[in-house]
Amino acid sequence: MISKSQIKLITSLKQKKYRNTEGLFVAEGPKVIAELVASKIRLHSLFTSEISAVEDSTTHKISELELKKISFLTTANSSLALFEIPQISEVKKTGLTVVLDAIRDPGNLGTIIRLCDWFGVEQLVCSTDTVDCYNPKVIQATMGSIARVQVHYLDVQEYLNSSNLPVYGGVMNGNSIYAETLPEDAIVVLGNEANGISKEIMGLLTHKITIPQFGQRHDTESLNVATATAVLLSEFRRTIGT
Amino acid sequence: MISKSQIKLITSLKQKKYRNTEGLFVAEGPKVIAELVASKIRLHSLFTSEISAVEDSTTHKISELELKKISFLTTANSSLALFEIPQISEVKKTGLTVVLDAIRDPGNLGTIIRLCDWFGVEQLVCSTDTVDCYNPKVIQATMGSIARVQVHYLDVQEYLNSSNLPVYGGVMNGNSIYAETLPEDAIVVLGNEANGISKEIMGLLTHKITIPQFGQRHDTESLNVATATAVLLSEFRRTIGT
Repeated sequence: MISKSQIKLITSLKQKKYRNTEGLFVAEGPKVIAELVASKIRLHSLFTSEISAVEDSTTHKISELELKKISFLTTANSSLALFEIPQISEVKKTGLTVVLDAIRDPGNLGTIIRLCDWFGVEQLVCSTDTVDCYNPKVIQATMGSIARVQVHYLDVQEYLNSSNLPVYGGVMNGNSIYAETLPEDAIVVLGNEANGISKEIMGLLTHKITIPQFGQRHDTESLNVATATAVLLSEFRRTIGT
Repeated sequence: MISKSQIKLITSLKQKKYRNTEGLFVAEGPKVIAELVASKIRLHSLFTSEISAVEDSTTHKISELELKKISFLTTANSSLALFEIPQISEVKKTGLTVVLDAIRDPGNLGTIIRLCDWFGVEQLVCSTDTVDCYNPKVIQATMGSIARVQVHYLDVQEYLNSSNLPVYGGVMNGNSIYAETLPEDAIVVLGNEANGISKEIMGLLTHKITIPQFGQRHDTESLNVATATAVLLSEFRRTIGT
């Protein structure tokens, strides 16, 4: 059973302002939910249509029809859960940090969080105009890796000004990433899908880097920001790890 | 103006069987259309709401409302065009070829085609159960790079059996990609989003390769297939290019 007030609460969490006031976010599907339950993130309540589920104070058995009503996905999964938005610790000043300047697509942010998790990047700093990491579409795209990456929303200019680390930025006409000697402690900046890194941030880069284009040259669209992040993080880790 | 039969034709092209019988596919948005017009792919007809457009035998000026009716996108663009599906040449036996085993997500296939274009991979071989590359969602995700990559749909087992090239496959427990000496002429196989490379194809790999995981180890979901392709292609090109 699910009450009207529970339905109202869940539906409200599509919007960032209600996620912030309630301190809750939504995750769907057994895989993502299991990853989050196993993490430090605290489960608030679970709604499931699985027959084997046992009801308790946080677990509510509901019908598939009820689940369809509250699901944010086109094809509803067998479970939907609410988790508490975790308190995040202070920004770490060492290691590899990824900075995102105005990433707008939830799928891209989710994929980048998943990449950070894979490549052992524990900290992501996002400009305040980057899409919210607790947006349901982001949560689905992270496949649960949001539990292992600290996401900070900050004034990126201030953050970069206050840091002593070298600042690498992915740009169209920089030095080949393959020719760079990459340090263990560094910041890597990726820019907006359409406009790249903004002028203000561009001025704060200490190293402009580019993924070289191969084959016949043409004025092609740049690489998608998530695939560019994959290549850059691979390069940072490869050169340290080998 | 757009006629009823034109609307019917365009709408039918959402489906693969009509794309095949008509020999046409749909592309939307000025950027993608411009890339295709500049390529060898032949324009069949253009429907545009741009005021500056000049009507001729292939260019039809239509209203925004009409465009909205025929658009496959949630937010219709200013133009929609039909292009002729090109005849593709024979499968090349040298160079770097990417093989996809049952990729189902149009966004993934489109992103992989865009990656092939960036990294100078001219040929992509897809299993017959891979999503159709002329699917409108794939075309949008390629950002026009479909014009520069030959996509073949083949029996992958037969293809691999008939080839003398080394066959690399992205797997969960292979050798680190960073430790491999990668050849210029090779085949790289990527598998299905949920199940990876199928058993039959797995048996035909000559080299099993893995992108190492960094930081705290956990049973995380593997990398998304498109981001894994980004890293693998970067490695193949880096070791040749530098």
